[in-house]
Amino acid sequence: MRRGNLMSVREDVKLLDATIRDGGLCNNFEFTDEFVTELYKTNIKSGVDYMEFGYRASRELFREEDFGKWKFCKEEDLRAIVGSNISDMKISVMADVGRCDYRKDFLPKSESVVDMVRVASYIHQIPAAIEMIEYLHELGYETACNIMAVTQASSEQIQSALEMLCRSSADVIYLVDSYGAFFPENASELAKVYVAAADKAGKRVGFHAHNNQSLAFANTIETLSYGVSYLDATVQGMGRGAGNCATELLLGFLRNPKYNLYSILTFIEKHMIPLRQQGIVWGFDLQYMFTGQLNRHPREAIQFTNDQRKDYCEFYKSLLDHL
Amino acid sequence: MRRGNLMSVREDVKLLDATIRDGGLCNNFEFTDEFVTELYKTNIKSGVDYMEFGYRASRELFREEDFGKWKFCKEEDLRAIVGSNISDMKISVMADVGRCDYRKDFLPKSESVVDMVRVASYIHQIPAAIEMIEYLHELGYETACNIMAVTQASSEQIQSALEMLCRSSADVIYLVDSYGAFFPENASELAKVYVAAADKAGKRVGFHAHNNQSLAFANTIETLSYGVSYLDATVQGMGRGAGNCATELLLGFLRNPKYNLYSILTFIEKHMIPLRQQGIVWGFDLQYMFTGQLNRHPREAIQFTNDQRKDYCEFYKSLLDHL
Repeated sequence: MRRGNLMSVREDVKLLDATIRDGGLCNNFEFTDEFVTELYKTNIKSGVDYMEFGYRASRELFREEDFGKWKFCKEEDLRAIVGSNISDMKISVMADVGRCDYRKDFLPKSESVVDMVRVASYIHQIPAAIEMIEYLHELGYETACNIMAVTQASSEQIQSALEMLCRSSADVIYLVDSYGAFFPENASELAKVYVAAADKAGKRVGFHAHNNQSLAFANTIETLSYGVSYLDATVQGMGRGAGNCATELLLGFLRNPKYNLYSILTFIEKHMIPLRQQGIVWGFDLQYMFTGQLNRHPREAIQFTNDQRKDYCEFYKSLLDHL
Repeated sequence: MRRGNLMSVREDVKLLDATIRDGGLCNNFEFTDEFVTELYKTNIKSGVDYMEFGYRASRELFREEDFGKWKFCKEEDLRAIVGSNISDMKISVMADVGRCDYRKDFLPKSESVVDMVRVASYIHQIPAAIEMIEYLHELGYETACNIMAVTQASSEQIQSALEMLCRSSADVIYLVDSYGAFFPENASELAKVYVAAADKAGKRVGFHAHNNQSLAFANTIETLSYGVSYLDATVQGMGRGAGNCATELLLGFLRNPKYNLYSILTFIEKHMIPLRQQGIVWGFDLQYMFTGQLNRHPREAIQFTNDQRKDYCEFYKSLLDHL
């Protein structure tokens, strides 16, 4: 059943801005402090519920000098932007299973400005994800688990992962369209499965879209209508490859008067357009459509983009050669 | 009820390429003969069911020297491209109520390569549209009626228009999202109303999308799933303002093996990319999102684009000043 309608406000809905985190994959996390500070202020004015500042990646696996600071989201770097974050907006960071030192790099929540940690996990890593979630929950954080690449998992695997997460301390379970392969009917079918499981366990469900088939916004509002609460968006859809659901599109859909489009427009004009002019590239293009239609990782399409190739036909044939 | 599913083929589905007609609004219909010929060949190879070559506009109201030839679609210009069209693909032209000389400009079907005439009508013009449809039907053409701007009409008006068209000789009734204001839930609700009326009268329903909210493809497949048969698309979404549903996206969705993506890719690489490089502009951008969200004609957004303005905030405020 659909929840709410095109006129109603659903109090369970939370808008999560992932611009720095997913957008950081486009510019190696090298945002200026001014950009991040202005986005923080903009998000507060726009009614955004959570702002994700980046990853808290392992500094043993990744060298700090190779990335911008938002790959690591050190406590002092966060505080340099948000102080003690006196706003109502919550702060999140993402940690990948197997690519973070969570036992070393997280303070107790009482000593941190981070509110939520989102654990990104492939389906075979769910036991490891749950170990992380329990540890972080004990520290006092809200936790979410983003189950990646579910279009390559079986229904049984998904059901099993949901059952395990429903028994865990995770607060939010995310449906993630890693490859931008969902049509709205796929998205709603899986949303129903996730929401049914989460409802019983008293948990919420989130959705993270990719725009490979120009469906990021459509899939987001489709899952929303079937009971998904946490909605990921990025300003102008900035994110890896084809990018994500654009915040400004979603703000045109949500009816809660706390959400405000105008602040985001100001930010786009002052900060996003210059970013594009610097040559940072993301968004829908044919090479991403191909990988979305073929349900596969966008890495070859990203390479095609980086190489500034325009020979779409050759590229498409090369993808078909390696199905 | 949904018809078919994500794996099935629906024989009633017809793909209509409107690249020259809606795309012509971006370049004053000034396509080269080579472009149109190659698109014609490409559409045949891709399994496209109808190719719309443009408008058959009044040469009394519009001066021929002010436009490319596809504003008028004279019989000899069509024949210069398609000969007698020995392919299975049908040929359509559009005629606007009040902007064509249909009693003068249409030959009997037996003397014409045109198969279908689509009559574009605002809802208050439906009686005039029906007069045209009956005349063209008598001449032997398939006829469709595209009811424009229905997001500004009342349910009663729409119901009344549908009843009148269902009593007419129109073969296809088109749901048209003129302003790109539909969310998928709006599109499916109206599709159900149109399909219910058309089913009883033995007629088909079509859908024509605009991409103002990045929902052209999503709305198209949503209405399809609720029984719409005729689907308008344009290569790379080329069309006025934010453009239309992109053919290449739709070809990734349709399961009928007669449809073929690869030919379209070749055409894009050889002909569409150069068109963009010449400075022809269309597609999703914030100014079109605004007019879509506000459910209004894109004319001010098109002007904003033509003026190469980037002051989105000022533009948005000016729209809000004239609601």
